[in-house]
Amino acid sequence: MRDVSLKENERLDDLMKSGRHIIQNTQEFCFSLDAVLLAHFLSWKSRQKVLELGTGTGVIPLIIADEVARVDAVELNPVMADVAARNVWMNELEDKIFVREGDYRGIRELYAPESFDVVVANPPYRPVAQGQVNKMSGVARARHEFTATLADVVRAARYALRFGGHFAMVHLPERLGEIIVCLHEHQLAPKRLQMVQPKDGKAPNMMLIEAVVGAAPGGLKVLPPLIVHEEDGSYTPEILRIYGMEEE
Amino acid sequence: MRDVSLKENERLDDLMKSGRHIIQNTQEFCFSLDAVLLAHFLSWKSRQKVLELGTGTGVIPLIIADEVARVDAVELNPVMADVAARNVWMNELEDKIFVREGDYRGIRELYAPESFDVVVANPPYRPVAQGQVNKMSGVARARHEFTATLADVVRAARYALRFGGHFAMVHLPERLGEIIVCLHEHQLAPKRLQMVQPKDGKAPNMMLIEAVVGAAPGGLKVLPPLIVHEEDGSYTPEILRIYGMEEE
Repeated sequence: MRDVSLKENERLDDLMKSGRHIIQNTQEFCFSLDAVLLAHFLSWKSRQKVLELGTGTGVIPLIIADEVARVDAVELNPVMADVAARNVWMNELEDKIFVREGDYRGIRELYAPESFDVVVANPPYRPVAQGQVNKMSGVARARHEFTATLADVVRAARYALRFGGHFAMVHLPERLGEIIVCLHEHQLAPKRLQMVQPKDGKAPNMMLIEAVVGAAPGGLKVLPPLIVHEEDGSYTPEILRIYGMEEE
Repeated sequence: MRDVSLKENERLDDLMKSGRHIIQNTQEFCFSLDAVLLAHFLSWKSRQKVLELGTGTGVIPLIIADEVARVDAVELNPVMADVAARNVWMNELEDKIFVREGDYRGIRELYAPESFDVVVANPPYRPVAQGQVNKMSGVARARHEFTATLADVVRAARYALRFGGHFAMVHLPERLGEIIVCLHEHQLAPKRLQMVQPKDGKAPNMMLIEAVVGAAPGGLKVLPPLIVHEEDGSYTPEILRIYGMEEE
């Protein structure tokens, strides 16, 4: 790991896997469980070229870098794009991860069409209601569709993916209907779905979905739900394993 | 209950709720957990006019009859339609349940448009592959789309439902993508979804979905999964409650 100097409001955190570290900005959106689950939802292959739409601090590229051929990542927020680029440099991954500051609503200006095997996104989850715009913090804004709607992210994914390529997203279960329709409208057929429940017996509050460009409809594999917490609030063994914290 | 004479291959079973009984034909498809779960998935209201597409023995109308205003039910198979009609008569429900032998692919000949509050269906689950037609038993045929496809049942439901009416279906999780797209193409927005797992920690093998005619997209309520069996194979308390067999 290279030495790095932190800017105002930044802190250096451990990234659970392989001794890597990550800079996060405490005033901006820090990576959380959803990004980690998304990174572990897919079976990565060493020949894959991957694109992340909206990378934030770059946490997903940092987690998967050793398992794939190359990761491109785009980030709209210049503060976050700078953090992501320094995270790549700090972890000596500049030959593997390529961060760009940019707006994926204009993806044609950024990447060649159908040039990726996998696209991942942890997009804003919630539609923007009238009048909300001025009331929200930066962190709240990252969770709402100010800068990209569901259709924007799916359209960008379809543009970037080769025929047969995979798109995976973490999102809210309450938007599953809209998501499947939007995927269908962009030639993406859902093939894997996993609900994430905060506890056993509770309704899911997050979901992971993978779709394939140009695949036949049908054959959606619904996985057993992923349970995050035990009754006592501690993490379940599966979550500890994903975080790389399982007991020996 | 009225006395009834059984025909060849028929047997008389208890129907868990309210002391009702049901004739089933052992050579044909007998009602099973999926129909019972579908009957209990919805919140019934006393003013509702309900239609079932493909009623089989009439088990769903028999379960819900006391909770709604009226149930119409159509069944293609004449043997089953006869059983359903005799089940209604035996249970003295001929003022509440109206069974017709008929093909809901031609629903315009059977019912007035937009005349129901709720439509339910436990349709054939699996697409028919080439060459399967002649190899299957009657029971297997009832589980494949020989007589009605997913699009047929959704189209019939949309025709029969008033604007704002509810359509509920039990189906396979692996077809969720196709189902949501098909609902969308017929102005139905999914609003409730429940996966049914054979055991805790296992992938779901059945699902319940409810959609509303003309509703805005979004706001899909994904319920906690329903678990059917305990580790030892016995029914879970929730299933016992649905079957009306819970301990006092």
